[in-house]
Amino acid sequence: MKGILITLEGNDGSGKSSVIEAIRKTLEEKGYPVVYTREPGGSQIAENIRKVILDVENTGMDAKTEALLYAASRREHIEKTIRPALEAGKIVLCDRFIDSSLAYQGYARGLGIDEVYHMNLYATEGLLPDLTILVCVKPEIGIARITQNHRGELDRLESEKMEFHQKVYQGYLAVQKKFSTRIQMIDGEKTKEEVRLDALDIVLRFIGEN
Amino acid sequence: MKGILITLEGNDGSGKSSVIEAIRKTLEEKGYPVVYTREPGGSQIAENIRKVILDVENTGMDAKTEALLYAASRREHIEKTIRPALEAGKIVLCDRFIDSSLAYQGYARGLGIDEVYHMNLYATEGLLPDLTILVCVKPEIGIARITQNHRGELDRLESEKMEFHQKVYQGYLAVQKKFSTRIQMIDGEKTKEEVRLDALDIVLRFIGEN
Repeated sequence: MKGILITLEGNDGSGKSSVIEAIRKTLEEKGYPVVYTREPGGSQIAENIRKVILDVENTGMDAKTEALLYAASRREHIEKTIRPALEAGKIVLCDRFIDSSLAYQGYARGLGIDEVYHMNLYATEGLLPDLTILVCVKPEIGIARITQNHRGELDRLESEKMEFHQKVYQGYLAVQKKFSTRIQMIDGEKTKEEVRLDALDIVLRFIGEN
Repeated sequence: MKGILITLEGNDGSGKSSVIEAIRKTLEEKGYPVVYTREPGGSQIAENIRKVILDVENTGMDAKTEALLYAASRREHIEKTIRPALEAGKIVLCDRFIDSSLAYQGYARGLGIDEVYHMNLYATEGLLPDLTILVCVKPEIGIARITQNHRGELDRLESEKMEFHQKVYQGYLAVQKKFSTRIQMIDGEKTKEEVRLDALDIVLRFIGEN
């Protein structure tokens, strides 16, 4: 594969989606072939799986079921979207990937980072991001931002209580420590503009533009 | 757990569904507390996953995605239906379980029986059937029976070509050989009555009634 897989990670309300949009725009302006995608979802079957995962009626879903569904969705996403784009030499920008599973299911839901990591390697056949940018904010700040944006309508994962968000935050820190070469962390509590510039700086250095 | 988990397996058209019905009826007549369930499905979330798996629009689903979805569905099924029934001391009769994944995804789709088995142990936390009855028919007989019953309307899995059905058949034989103590095989090409009697004999001996 000749392409580059860059994933964006962050806890809820970290602002990673606007960061990824800025990266996409900048890379395209510089003439790079970019494919934007996201998890869960990113291909037709993966979107169907996403619906099952995020369905508010499915509250009470067992943590291992959730981890397996994310892995199934990721597998499909890789086969149908990510791998073909990488083979065509593109830069794939993916909003959430394996590290979300490690932070949410592995750490926050208590399944174990290593266990979820190994189960995911079965699904991905070892495919890992070339670079991961992690945007982190303290959970109380992240959730306050989300509540404002969605006007109170939260999906199942977002409506979990604050204790869980604290665990996700700590989970991301643990995952970053484990894969500190691949995952570069940005302080999401800086201004939007500063966060964007930090992220762009990392990406452009990685692809040899800075 | 004090209950007993009995699973019924067989290739398409083997007649296992009417066998399981006969077992249920006989055990209930003898006063045993029986829970009948099936895979994929068997609980609300598992049914939603089942829909994704069997949706004819999802033809072209990657084999590992399929294996992971079955494992996710199985996990949910165990947590919500099977384990509580076993803990309540019931006999759980389940139409298809882990051996279907081994025969279909592990062998017929070429993922490897051992790989799918280990991934499933992650999902089931080691829960295996106490007894498995495998009803096998040659694929050409099984498919002829199905086509007659459904009047030509087959779901995605059933509409796969004959070559695949041959592989499933061989997969079941390989799985039976691997777990020959747990899995007892019945010749599904005998008459319906003979198959039923063979299955009942095995079950009643297993629970100490014969």
